[in-house]
Amino acid sequence: MSELKSEGRFAYEGIDRVIHEKARLSIVASLAAHPDGLQFNDLKDQCTLTDGNLSRHLQVLQEAGVVEVKKSSKNNRPQTWCKLTATGRKRFAEYVAALEKVVSDALPRQESTRRSGMPRGLFPA
Amino acid sequence: MSELKSEGRFAYEGIDRVIHEKARLSIVASLAAHPDGLQFNDLKDQCTLTDGNLSRHLQVLQEAGVVEVKKSSKNNRPQTWCKLTATGRKRFAEYVAALEKVVSDALPRQESTRRSGMPRGLFPA
Repeated sequence: MSELKSEGRFAYEGIDRVIHEKARLSIVASLAAHPDGLQFNDLKDQCTLTDGNLSRHLQVLQEAGVVEVKKSSKNNRPQTWCKLTATGRKRFAEYVAALEKVVSDALPRQESTRRSGMPRGLFPA
Repeated sequence: MSELKSEGRFAYEGIDRVIHEKARLSIVASLAAHPDGLQFNDLKDQCTLTDGNLSRHLQVLQEAGVVEVKKSSKNNRPQTWCKLTATGRKRFAEYVAALEKVVSDALPRQESTRRSGMPRGLFPA
């Protein structure tokens, strides 16, 4: 029962709500995997989002300084280019570290109901 | 650019919105680590939530069949006991598998900017 003493043990402060929202997580993860950025329509396909949803969430991410959006034109057709900022990349790395903590907390319990004395989550795989 | 062809590659359909919300993730992860359940006040401390927030999110989880809440009394003092249901345990396991996918998609990119030809996320560590 010693775990009960550790207040906030499962608070996961590192989970950044700007990135955590499901659609935005999808957007940020996709852009993190494409360092040169993605065009609006490609990003939309990768995340399976509607135009409206992608626009709305891109705006939140842009206002938070996580994503930069550039408009240009190619062959007289307008193009919207989306890319993670340096801040966005850093915040996503911190967010992923928080997710790893959730996963490492959960996995030992799923694999065996009892572990040796090693505190959970302190030694991620 | 072959990744661009894989529509929905970053949609993360396995992310269950009922569990994904930050406070609820905290509650479910904490209960998953305590198979016998937790009392309301202990759960509140583990998650660093207010009484109102914990009540509200417990209700959502209860309505979704993820958590069961039992009220009893001990030494004439009312007690509220919270526990994951079998369904909740299963849904959390599926959710954690989706998080592992997010983490495995992100980590190679953070560790090296270029990988060998192995598709990302198909072979989690």
